[in-house]
Amino acid sequence: MTSHPRVDRGRLARAFAEISRFGATDAGGLHRLALGDADRDARTCLVDWCRTAGYAITVDRVGSIFATRPGIDPGAPPLLIGSHLDSQPNGGRFDGAVGVVAAYEVLRSLDDLGVATRQPVQLVNWTNEEGARFRPPLIASAVFAGVQSLEAALDCRDDDGARLGDELERIGFSGPQDPGWPVSGYIEIHIEQGTVLERQAVPIGVVTGVVGIRDIAVRVVGADTHAGPLAMHLRRDALVGAAAMILAANEIGLAHAPEARVTVGRISVPSNSHSVVPGLADFVLDIRHPDDAALADLESSLRARFASIAAARNVTVTFDEMWSLPAVAFDPTLRRTIAEAAERLGYATMALPSRAGHDAWNMARVAPSAMIFIPCRDGISHNEAEHAEFEHIAASADVLLNTVIATAGAG
Amino acid sequence: MTSHPRVDRGRLARAFAEISRFGATDAGGLHRLALGDADRDARTCLVDWCRTAGYAITVDRVGSIFATRPGIDPGAPPLLIGSHLDSQPNGGRFDGAVGVVAAYEVLRSLDDLGVATRQPVQLVNWTNEEGARFRPPLIASAVFAGVQSLEAALDCRDDDGARLGDELERIGFSGPQDPGWPVSGYIEIHIEQGTVLERQAVPIGVVTGVVGIRDIAVRVVGADTHAGPLAMHLRRDALVGAAAMILAANEIGLAHAPEARVTVGRISVPSNSHSVVPGLADFVLDIRHPDDAALADLESSLRARFASIAAARNVTVTFDEMWSLPAVAFDPTLRRTIAEAAERLGYATMALPSRAGHDAWNMARVAPSAMIFIPCRDGISHNEAEHAEFEHIAASADVLLNTVIATAGAG
Repeated sequence: MTSHPRVDRGRLARAFAEISRFGATDAGGLHRLALGDADRDARTCLVDWCRTAGYAITVDRVGSIFATRPGIDPGAPPLLIGSHLDSQPNGGRFDGAVGVVAAYEVLRSLDDLGVATRQPVQLVNWTNEEGARFRPPLIASAVFAGVQSLEAALDCRDDDGARLGDELERIGFSGPQDPGWPVSGYIEIHIEQGTVLERQAVPIGVVTGVVGIRDIAVRVVGADTHAGPLAMHLRRDALVGAAAMILAANEIGLAHAPEARVTVGRISVPSNSHSVVPGLADFVLDIRHPDDAALADLESSLRARFASIAAARNVTVTFDEMWSLPAVAFDPTLRRTIAEAAERLGYATMALPSRAGHDAWNMARVAPSAMIFIPCRDGISHNEAEHAEFEHIAASADVLLNTVIATAGAG
Repeated sequence: MTSHPRVDRGRLARAFAEISRFGATDAGGLHRLALGDADRDARTCLVDWCRTAGYAITVDRVGSIFATRPGIDPGAPPLLIGSHLDSQPNGGRFDGAVGVVAAYEVLRSLDDLGVATRQPVQLVNWTNEEGARFRPPLIASAVFAGVQSLEAALDCRDDDGARLGDELERIGFSGPQDPGWPVSGYIEIHIEQGTVLERQAVPIGVVTGVVGIRDIAVRVVGADTHAGPLAMHLRRDALVGAAAMILAANEIGLAHAPEARVTVGRISVPSNSHSVVPGLADFVLDIRHPDDAALADLESSLRARFASIAAARNVTVTFDEMWSLPAVAFDPTLRRTIAEAAERLGYATMALPSRAGHDAWNMARVAPSAMIFIPCRDGISHNEAEHAEFEHIAASADVLLNTVIATAGAG
């Protein structure tokens, strides 16, 4: 074994190509919603790979899949590595899948190298990371970390009323294992989904932590009326009020650059008629900031601005917090180990925060956790055009391999 | 017979109360979408009333219901009076139903008075006036007037994919009669849906015509991306672009007061995820103006403003005209007859345009047509809080009765 081993690039490329077939779209993207048929097929493929390689499979009660490469000390808590195979609707092939495939390749490379670690190393594929089909996102790692009840997770329903627990049964991934055993650490590779690494031409990002994220359901109420007869200045148009709030939210977010993110990604107008002035508009406000106090200030600014818009436009506005994830810092020792491994391999690194929620956010509550980011083209993600260079995927797998060897203990 | 006969207020009130039961909502409104079960029940009730009173029922192939009170000259084309029984989703009890019930009461009053008219008088209930379930609106009168093909109308589908022709069969209102026989005139009573009559305290509006109405599907395209990582100034957020356009549309409409109306009543964001910056937003722009040239100018202003907003916000915008109804003037003789009838009855009148589409807009293309408006509280319509005073309903029925007697020819 060399002192700075690298993964098998051919095997990694083949595995990534194979897993990308499940839910592939004509435009080169991926539509693999959690617990749908494409997700079932991708899960089955992963389980087949792992069983063939001799790793024991454990499926927990919320459907997360674990593949174990044993350690020398069978009583030592495992080091977890992995990510998620589910995608956004018409999303990209790289978001999540890169981390799962790289983790599989790391296990295989450990075998090739004949490395015996003290701790077991466990690959994980988390259920419903995206939250696109079943809300909230990150649900399985939240159950694993004990911050969400298993029963509530199983009772989540998608927009068509399908229950998460029933969908697990349907696709054959409702496992017997209670989630939440002791782990010694968690490391996840993921595409950055931003442009920081790309602009700096740095292949390896050492993630400092995850920003705080808060989602708020906003309801604007005016009065439904006919689009013709009533004079326009007498209207109480909830959609016009919501439009002013969406613009203000964007302005406030931009004014708090570079750290803040403010997004409206969902909106609905129940009257939904060309000839009805909307009396009701609902939208979801997503706000993100690496500093929890600044996040709270940002929310206060938005609420105050929305209230003044509502007053000026003769509508009312109410807020309902859907979820709030405080900012989290990743483990300093793991971050240092990742940076040193990259340096030994000759890959430039930089430290940066994650502005997206990841399962590592939940795992950081119960174990030393860290993430490795790689660049993605133009920062585009949650989009069929999402793209990451294979050499960056391979480099991150090299870094993870060396980090695992350094962390899981010499045999 | 007195020289200024009036309708039977008790019978009118009972009929209105009975028809209001079908699709009644807990909040006192009406949810009676075209060809749904509530519409079927209201139609059946109307047919029962008319058959009991001895009027022959004709149902045409697009499901409109006609009840005929014979004239002395069986070859004379009938005078049509009526409106529609379908409603908006969670709409009001008065929009449409007032005109149908008043027309029924006029037929009954003609019987009570022993009036023999030269022309037959035909009550009509038009299918799918609202266009809330099957688009476009006014579809049955458009087929009757020969400006829309029967086949295209029957092939309209609702948002769940149900076909208009199949729904007619399902509820038993697919008639054998080809629509579009010769008629001598058309008169419709309707609530104003604005505040002009209420503010002037005038019970009877003599409608001068219908404003031009144009509906345009607007598509804003940016790029889907994740709500977290990408710096906000690099986003191409289609919903922020759409919000700016919706605000601009409202401003431009207000700047063209008092004649213009500009409304966005439908919007959708297909990505529909809290954590996705929307790359696509679709909305429907509804514009109205009594002057066709001014309407065209208004549309040009809106398109130019939207294009400059799109350029400034790094998104694209495209337009697809859904339908366009030019302004129409109602028949001067019928308008004079209505005003004179009201004057003889002691009801104040004023002339005003309709800013909503009505089936009379289509009928004006093939026969002398007119409308009688009554006030509605605060101009609120397409809303469960819609309300009209019974005395105004009764007054309009009195005016229609006298107008029919003056128009359909002495026996």
